[in-house]
Amino acid sequence: MTGPRLGEAEIVERLVQIGWKGSRAVRLGPGDDAAFLRGGVVISTDLAVEGVHFRLDWIDAEGAGFRAAAAALSDIAAMGAKPEVLLVSLAVPPSSPELAESVQRGVASAADRVEVAIVGGDLSRTPGPVVVDVVAVGRAHAVVTRSGARPGHAVWVTGALGGAAAAVAAWSDGRSPHPAARGRFASPPNRVPVALELARKGLARSMIDISDGLVVDTGRVAKASCALLALRRELVPVHPGAEGDLKLALQGGEDYELMFTAPPGAEARIVAIGEEVQVPLTRIGSVREGEGVVVEDASGARMEVGCGGFDHFADGPAE
Amino acid sequence: MTGPRLGEAEIVERLVQIGWKGSRAVRLGPGDDAAFLRGGVVISTDLAVEGVHFRLDWIDAEGAGFRAAAAALSDIAAMGAKPEVLLVSLAVPPSSPELAESVQRGVASAADRVEVAIVGGDLSRTPGPVVVDVVAVGRAHAVVTRSGARPGHAVWVTGALGGAAAAVAAWSDGRSPHPAARGRFASPPNRVPVALELARKGLARSMIDISDGLVVDTGRVAKASCALLALRRELVPVHPGAEGDLKLALQGGEDYELMFTAPPGAEARIVAIGEEVQVPLTRIGSVREGEGVVVEDASGARMEVGCGGFDHFADGPAE
Repeated sequence: MTGPRLGEAEIVERLVQIGWKGSRAVRLGPGDDAAFLRGGVVISTDLAVEGVHFRLDWIDAEGAGFRAAAAALSDIAAMGAKPEVLLVSLAVPPSSPELAESVQRGVASAADRVEVAIVGGDLSRTPGPVVVDVVAVGRAHAVVTRSGARPGHAVWVTGALGGAAAAVAAWSDGRSPHPAARGRFASPPNRVPVALELARKGLARSMIDISDGLVVDTGRVAKASCALLALRRELVPVHPGAEGDLKLALQGGEDYELMFTAPPGAEARIVAIGEEVQVPLTRIGSVREGEGVVVEDASGARMEVGCGGFDHFADGPAE
Repeated sequence: MTGPRLGEAEIVERLVQIGWKGSRAVRLGPGDDAAFLRGGVVISTDLAVEGVHFRLDWIDAEGAGFRAAAAALSDIAAMGAKPEVLLVSLAVPPSSPELAESVQRGVASAADRVEVAIVGGDLSRTPGPVVVDVVAVGRAHAVVTRSGARPGHAVWVTGALGGAAAAVAAWSDGRSPHPAARGRFASPPNRVPVALELARKGLARSMIDISDGLVVDTGRVAKASCALLALRRELVPVHPGAEGDLKLALQGGEDYELMFTAPPGAEARIVAIGEEVQVPLTRIGSVREGEGVVVEDASGARMEVGCGGFDHFADGPAE
């Protein structure tokens, strides 16, 4: 290798440069959780590679399929769109064709949760690890992007964070994960209904799937919105599986929760939606003039968060 | 392994059983070249795995991307739909992140040929072979399916067949392929304009991408249409790269040409379209009452064609 090692973000930026050009068919191109096409079509694709995104000694093939589908559906949810169909591309070793069926069953089970059909896909053998690429297609009249955060907005998060990362950390250290953490990794939550409700009522003005980690993904909203997103550390909901480890909640990723920003005065309505769909919604900070993301305590003292986060390219959970 | 080895078709059938269920969002589900969604959206995904669909000592990474995109676009063309956008999922070894850019350049180059933008995708490192999954999205008011072949129709094919398979056969034997065969494998043709024209004018009543081999894919149209498709062996256009080997033309696959059936009396108009878009269109047989596919000579004697064809799962070009 010559030159510094490229991270996922840099490579993705180069790939976008190579492939993207304006098109009448496209209302919103690369750079958000999903693309938005004319006719209200929202589309995203999510690649999971054995040994990088999952290991079959951590979860079974069905769990791997479920997670891959949950990841793709989370991208559609983050746009405030209603998922309608999935396509599934699978590569499995020729010695274990039954793996394809197990993965597909997991995908179908996540799809059933949101009443989505699998309408196609592709299948190949592979001399390497199992690969699952799930394409999710949804619809929306208008989408919620990463660029809608405005000073005065409140920053909210769905569910609780750090559980999935705690499981990965345990497995990677050769430990058995906390049962709550394992469950969190194996069965990511379904945030489609809450996201749709928040979008329909105009309460989520910016939104993002925080599966790369709260701080990293909040930073993406900050950048796209040209705003400063200030998170209050003691407000961040830490998943029981993370056993109080705030760092996992801030930087862990892989939870498939959503971060969104809402206009002032929306708090009561947001809380009501959370109660209605039975998803905890927590206000964790505010949007200010400025740029970037900071994590503060109640006194306003800033915590050093670094630029860590989940980079599928440089440092996945498994070798 | 217990029980007989499953082929690609059987596994795909099982996968469809697992994932498909009727949906108001879907006008045509699994079983054709692409799915057809409400709003006129046509979508397909095409997975290419290093060592199965291509080898980087046969073609470079850019060529692999070009072929993967051509495959996905060919599925959209086979529906008589206009491709609008692509998404690209890439898995590359962490030691060679530059491979991702090369593959993406190849995809972009095939996309440019049909004025299509890349609107998204995903990127991962992998401990295994390079994987490229290309999602193609197109639009159509109505689609041309596999089920529209009727007795009395003529069977047509675009371009010439067997060139790509001749290249694969040569490489697999350790020989240097005929330059025309190599070119055919490295740069599959663009059949989008001719397919659109045939569909728009109502001349293609059934259509399929014959990348698994003429006989196998014609058999799929026969099955979906409940008809017998009789091919005349001496009419099948053999690509120069195949050097007269009819078997490669009948069963080779990987050419990304199209087979379609047209109603009686359409010959002159079809030939005119071929001349207009400069794609050879050849009448190679006819549709009759019955079921299946046969290959005959001028006297009506049938040739044994077996059930061979390209099965990405059981017997790809490379180990």
